Amino acid sequence: MVVETKPKAGLEDVVAGESAICFLDGARGVLAYCGYDIHDLADVERGASFEEVCFLMWHRRLPNRSELGDLQTQLAAARILPDAILRAIKSLPPVDGMDALRTLTSMLGHYDPDAADRSPEARYRKAVRLTGQLGALVATWGRWTAGGSPVAPDPALSHAANFLYLLTGQRPSPLAARAFDVSLVLHADHELNASTFAARVAAATLTDIHSTIVSAIGTLKGPLHGGANAEVMKLLLEIGATAGLDRAEAVVRGKLARKEKVAGFGHRVYRTEDPRAMHLRRLSKTLGEKAGQPQWYAMTERIEQVVKAEKGLYPNVDLYSASMFYALGLPVDLYTPIFAVSRVSGWTAHVLEQYANNRLIRPRADYIGPAYPQTFLRLDQR
Amino acid sequence: MVVETKPKAGLEDVVAGESAICFLDGARGVLAYCGYDIHDLADVERGASFEEVCFLMWHRRLPNRSELGDLQTQLAAARILPDAILRAIKSLPPVDGMDALRTLTSMLGHYDPDAADRSPEARYRKAVRLTGQLGALVATWGRWTAGGSPVAPDPALSHAANFLYLLTGQRPSPLAARAFDVSLVLHADHELNASTFAARVAAATLTDIHSTIVSAIGTLKGPLHGGANAEVMKLLLEIGATAGLDRAEAVVRGKLARKEKVAGFGHRVYRTEDPRAMHLRRLSKTLGEKAGQPQWYAMTERIEQVVKAEKGLYPNVDLYSASMFYALGLPVDLYTPIFAVSRVSGWTAHVLEQYANNRLIRPRADYIGPAYPQTFLRLDQR
Repeated sequence: MVVETKPKAGLEDVVAGESAICFLDGARGVLAYCGYDIHDLADVERGASFEEVCFLMWHRRLPNRSELGDLQTQLAAARILPDAILRAIKSLPPVDGMDALRTLTSMLGHYDPDAADRSPEARYRKAVRLTGQLGALVATWGRWTAGGSPVAPDPALSHAANFLYLLTGQRPSPLAARAFDVSLVLHADHELNASTFAARVAAATLTDIHSTIVSAIGTLKGPLHGGANAEVMKLLLEIGATAGLDRAEAVVRGKLARKEKVAGFGHRVYRTEDPRAMHLRRLSKTLGEKAGQPQWYAMTERIEQVVKAEKGLYPNVDLYSASMFYALGLPVDLYTPIFAVSRVSGWTAHVLEQYANNRLIRPRADYIGPAYPQTFLRLDQR
Repeated sequence: MVVETKPKAGLEDVVAGESAICFLDGARGVLAYCGYDIHDLADVERGASFEEVCFLMWHRRLPNRSELGDLQTQLAAARILPDAILRAIKSLPPVDGMDALRTLTSMLGHYDPDAADRSPEARYRKAVRLTGQLGALVATWGRWTAGGSPVAPDPALSHAANFLYLLTGQRPSPLAARAFDVSLVLHADHELNASTFAARVAAATLTDIHSTIVSAIGTLKGPLHGGANAEVMKLLLEIGATAGLDRAEAVVRGKLARKEKVAGFGHRVYRTEDPRAMHLRRLSKTLGEKAGQPQWYAMTERIEQVVKAEKGLYPNVDLYSASMFYALGLPVDLYTPIFAVSRVSGWTAHVLEQYANNRLIRPRADYIGPAYPQTFLRLDQR
């Protein structure tokens, strides 16, 4: 058996391929999409919108005004979900949001006008369409499961503002819309994270784009990947809104003493603070004060200090997105689906890139089972 | 950026982890499940049933009579699909079989009695249940789309025989049942093929087992993975039942001259003939004669000779399964879903193994995009 390369478990530090989308320097704490630093893109006043970031990742350059307008029109069209999908949202039993998203996204493939078209042009249209659809899908599903009736998207609103509008039925404030927009920008891509890698493994068989995104959704669902900010918020809620900072510290110290994991810290790639954390920390503070609930931010800050001092671990993207999403009024069980609403932009960018320069992704395993050959005995001889 | 290992494209020859399920020696042409040679397991008269192979992969040893009886009972129960799934089968628009299977398997997760239970025992029950369900699902979907009404499974029949019964409404002959059973045995596992690897990438985030299998289904759908035997049969049908061997040879020589790929040949791992091909070759011959249509086998044999002589390529598992499935009367658009009906046993075995000794699978990419840092200009400055 020719086996040349036996890396660390979990393919740590193994280069699985080339990509022009995400530059990630774990040692220096740098994240950039197509060369643009995340700190520039995520700047609340002077940064980029989620739509601009989508265009950037799909085309490797930022759009001009006319290109951005075209993309906004395409996304607006995609937000109007097929009737069959609206019926399916209403007929699903009560399930986990990611399970619903997995099924409904798979169903979107049945109704896609380009379903059978494998041309690069059709695949690009499907990437745009899925990105538009997933926002509307998650918001509408979230509204329906909370007892609300679906509302029609407003083509004059941004992708971020539409999400909040379809979820709440209220047009969001400019601050809320931009804060959510920035969170979409921050979550849009992160190189070969597990769900993106899953999408590329699927794409490398030349399967259709819906299959690749469904695969990514199922992978993102895992608590080691997409579930961490919901875990952070559950911990904060468990500690309680009025418990105070010392109580938060005691709870976390207790967890650490019992060798329990505290969600929201550490990362396979970063040896520094996650560069996304800074922006979410600020937004959590601003929005929490605005909402009259500054305690969630304050508790998170205390938890950060304790875990940094005790374990030397830095916050990742999930630590402050928890309280920031909460201040925006987003239900905790939508946190992971919302991650998908943003990350579908990166997933599709990677899938299109994989299709354009493809090789089947097919590694090997080290066999550690019963020695070969075993003597086969028929059932009546066992 | 610390990047230690940069292997060949597509992770070729990279060991992505350990596994006790499948022993694959590509140089010698050996395939064994948990140490048992595929030639012993797939022997038509003296080999193992698909159910025994499932038990073998899930437990790393063959079952005794009582253990096999228990498993058969569990699979029989699983073949009775939830009413909501039967309704969904009937309400899907006309779609590709793998698209239907992807959505319906995702929906099975909504109705699983162990959906929220992450214990090893519940995960094992879900592995058994999904394996029982997928056979019934594909057969019932195939029957429905061909205009038939669903029939109830017969607990006295094997998994293979039930599949043919649920598809055709007729109890199959012992020869047909065992031939299909052998094909399920042959397709049950193949180490870290793309769909199994996709399932493990998903499982490594600790997502639920339905998500992992949906991911595998979407990955198997790709023409570089699961679609090859359908491609072979389409080629044979295109040549035509009465065209003769010389015509078949001419068509294939023409394809080779135009540098077109001929499906059913070559493999990432094997440097020899695929050990599964021998069994499918025999079954294709026997069943073709029995069905009074020996020409498909004969044409395949001629194609094999031409491609071997011209390109030095050996047949893989797909070359003869095409004509063998055709002789069994299976519709060509069910070939890839049938692959999933068998491979779900291996997928679930690998997923349970991943859960039992887990590390997040998260490789790196080589960044080849626009140089970092790019100067960010706002929209009105571009």
